[in-house]
Amino acid sequence: MAIADIRTGERNDAGIRQVVDILKQQFGERLQTGEAFRAQHAHTTTYIAPQLPDAVVFAETADEVKAVVRLAAAHRVPVIPFGVGTSLEGQVNAPSGGISIDLSRMDKVLQVNAEDLDCTVEPGITRVALNTYLRDTGLFFPIDPGANASIGGMTSTRASGTNAVRYGTMRDNVIAVTAVTATGEEIRTGHRARKSSAGYDLTRLFVGAEGTLGVITSVTLKLSGVPQAISGGVCPFGSVEDACNAVIMTIQMGIPVARIELLDALQMKACNAYSGLDYPDAPALFVEFHGTEASVREQAATFGEIAAECGGGAFLWETDPEARNRLWKARHDAYFAALQLRPGAGTFATDVCVPISRLAECVRETQEDIAANGLMAPIVGHAGDGNFHVMVLMDMADSGEIDRAEAFVERLNARALAMDGTCTGEHGIGQGKQRFLGEEIGDGVDLMRAIKTALDPQNIMNPGKIFALS
Amino acid sequence: MAIADIRTGERNDAGIRQVVDILKQQFGERLQTGEAFRAQHAHTTTYIAPQLPDAVVFAETADEVKAVVRLAAAHRVPVIPFGVGTSLEGQVNAPSGGISIDLSRMDKVLQVNAEDLDCTVEPGITRVALNTYLRDTGLFFPIDPGANASIGGMTSTRASGTNAVRYGTMRDNVIAVTAVTATGEEIRTGHRARKSSAGYDLTRLFVGAEGTLGVITSVTLKLSGVPQAISGGVCPFGSVEDACNAVIMTIQMGIPVARIELLDALQMKACNAYSGLDYPDAPALFVEFHGTEASVREQAATFGEIAAECGGGAFLWETDPEARNRLWKARHDAYFAALQLRPGAGTFATDVCVPISRLAECVRETQEDIAANGLMAPIVGHAGDGNFHVMVLMDMADSGEIDRAEAFVERLNARALAMDGTCTGEHGIGQGKQRFLGEEIGDGVDLMRAIKTALDPQNIMNPGKIFALS
Repeated sequence: MAIADIRTGERNDAGIRQVVDILKQQFGERLQTGEAFRAQHAHTTTYIAPQLPDAVVFAETADEVKAVVRLAAAHRVPVIPFGVGTSLEGQVNAPSGGISIDLSRMDKVLQVNAEDLDCTVEPGITRVALNTYLRDTGLFFPIDPGANASIGGMTSTRASGTNAVRYGTMRDNVIAVTAVTATGEEIRTGHRARKSSAGYDLTRLFVGAEGTLGVITSVTLKLSGVPQAISGGVCPFGSVEDACNAVIMTIQMGIPVARIELLDALQMKACNAYSGLDYPDAPALFVEFHGTEASVREQAATFGEIAAECGGGAFLWETDPEARNRLWKARHDAYFAALQLRPGAGTFATDVCVPISRLAECVRETQEDIAANGLMAPIVGHAGDGNFHVMVLMDMADSGEIDRAEAFVERLNARALAMDGTCTGEHGIGQGKQRFLGEEIGDGVDLMRAIKTALDPQNIMNPGKIFALS
Repeated sequence: MAIADIRTGERNDAGIRQVVDILKQQFGERLQTGEAFRAQHAHTTTYIAPQLPDAVVFAETADEVKAVVRLAAAHRVPVIPFGVGTSLEGQVNAPSGGISIDLSRMDKVLQVNAEDLDCTVEPGITRVALNTYLRDTGLFFPIDPGANASIGGMTSTRASGTNAVRYGTMRDNVIAVTAVTATGEEIRTGHRARKSSAGYDLTRLFVGAEGTLGVITSVTLKLSGVPQAISGGVCPFGSVEDACNAVIMTIQMGIPVARIELLDALQMKACNAYSGLDYPDAPALFVEFHGTEASVREQAATFGEIAAECGGGAFLWETDPEARNRLWKARHDAYFAALQLRPGAGTFATDVCVPISRLAECVRETQEDIAANGLMAPIVGHAGDGNFHVMVLMDMADSGEIDRAEAFVERLNARALAMDGTCTGEHGIGQGKQRFLGEEIGDGVDLMRAIKTALDPQNIMNPGKIFALS
């Protein structure tokens, strides 16, 4: 693969051996070195080749995380934080080997402050488990990247997803974290106040740092009230451009839509087949409105007018909660549905995000590019944010097709940057997008490197991610 | 003063002389060394003693900022960015001397992307000037700290103010910045996409850095649509505790109130006198609702019920835009109104912020503390955020009163921290709150120091602010 930066890093074999031996004594069965465990912890979901850690340690407390990091620091051995492994840019790979710290057993809800609409959780809890826990409080955690990711992982990749257009991303919904830094100290970045001007925004520094500055040991999150009323459904369009124009008008008019998701015709076909739905195989917007009964009615009526004006077909409302759940389950399964279009294919999970005014143009040019290059690549997107994913399905035995796919991805990212956008709206840089980060941020990457080097001079915290250190 | 960290730093007199001489040649009349100019640029508004820069340079372009910083870096001379000088914690002071870079002439609107609800401006434009510029676009920039601050300054202190409960703070409304770093390079932190996971969040790092990491040369801001309908007014309460309880219920019920401001009886008395109003001299909430006609009506009705339930008096609606402007002008003049309560007094501008559930308790205990210590200290606050200011008015000739005031401020900050809050919701640390930052963030301050040292190894960017470097 030419695009992803998955070079093997330098290994400190002697140090790794020592650390594994000591951890084995300390953790017993909670330290695993078998290939199956190691492979599971380097599972990258996409085309990025796995790079296995030397061992996996299942941490159960922040003190254990501290102990592991201190040991690793003393021996200059990499540590790679692992939640549930749903990241898409090789964030869990171990290019220089080292210890994968599996945090999935640190999954407790530490505190719910219902009156303040916040909670504090351990990093390994998944978003679905958290929402199950919150069921009876009248509150929910709205960020929904599709996958049942861990909260620590979502924090580390600055995740967002279908609800971000209304509720924001992890950047907006993390109030504070505690983290074990490269020296094995646990620090906290803030308290529970809703706003603070107390020095540098360490919270936002850890949100999106992909584990390269420390291991997150707890996350304090904003919660939202479960809306009194929800309505939504599916609206088909004649073209993705028409659908995008409806999105643009919706956002520009300030309608507080909770979800507005774009699926192109190929993705709709895949979803209909995979999830047993019977929507038209046409470009569509999946929308959802949250609010009071009155405001939801008002939002839906205004959106209906916009959709009609943009050439949308009959709106298919799903008022029944069960039908609505089926609908969003289908949307969340879009990735797996797309894989079924070409079983055995390798995938690129692209993630561009552009200013909303450029969305229709960006999607249209991208579709033309897909067609011109004979690629199979359904499109699905968080259109309200200007964010969309083109899932390129490649025959991994056809090097010519892989080359064409890589060239396409380069053009896609360049197109988004030329439109004042980003190469990654929500997946992060990991190993897969390092070369685009430089094009996007320029000399700013030097600041990132300087921060990394200052906070982790030995480069043991998830090395090889976001940027190469020379 | 014992609280503020306004020690004089080490001066590099030889370097400063050289830099001033060279700048004099380059900038002519735009380099000023007269006492009046220097004093104006060290005006701290509050009790913090001014520390004058050696010269003030009026920069007109980012290239000029680069040139000044490069020269200062070559001679190891401090640079202090200056917008309009409304900061409250000594952020514009020059404890080690150096060059104040006045950015007020860099006040252009560089770009308005109405379709994307964003704009890019130079740092010296004030929020009022920006909103005047935007008048015909149907958009506005909502963050309103009261003072007509510059956008660069508001970015640097992570400002917020009366609208933050609905529209967020500068943290939420800055999309990207360009900044000249300590090496004299200009970097940009991002593009215009609404969200991004492209590496460390450099944007949020500069928001709130108080000029210690670089000089901001442009800011890309989110804009909001001017609401279709606005309504609001004043509701008196029997006690600040009752008023706080109404705020708590409003926030917990998720009413998207645009402004909900608390004024205690003393502050109301001051405002009535200063602004010629005739509200009762009783604790009050100033509220404002933004939305469609229907949603504003719905919000106002629900709030009315809450206020009544909490023992509020008759709600005084101000439907006429002019009366509403007078009302908010009075709110914004609260600081000057309070000063008139005790002409010639010195002030502490405190800024605690607590989780909303603790607000009533925190304000009540604070009022009891004020009374017990015989202080004159009106309270005004952005209650919807849990943020309130106690403005301690001190006879600067009475050292006993100053001691009591300082002890009171220490207790106030400790009280907020004990309630999981912060010592500063929106003013920043500057020189005035350094000792509290350590109590609040603990070892996290070491991370801040490490970042500062990595990005500004010579410590020339606004030295002596946020934390001392040992």
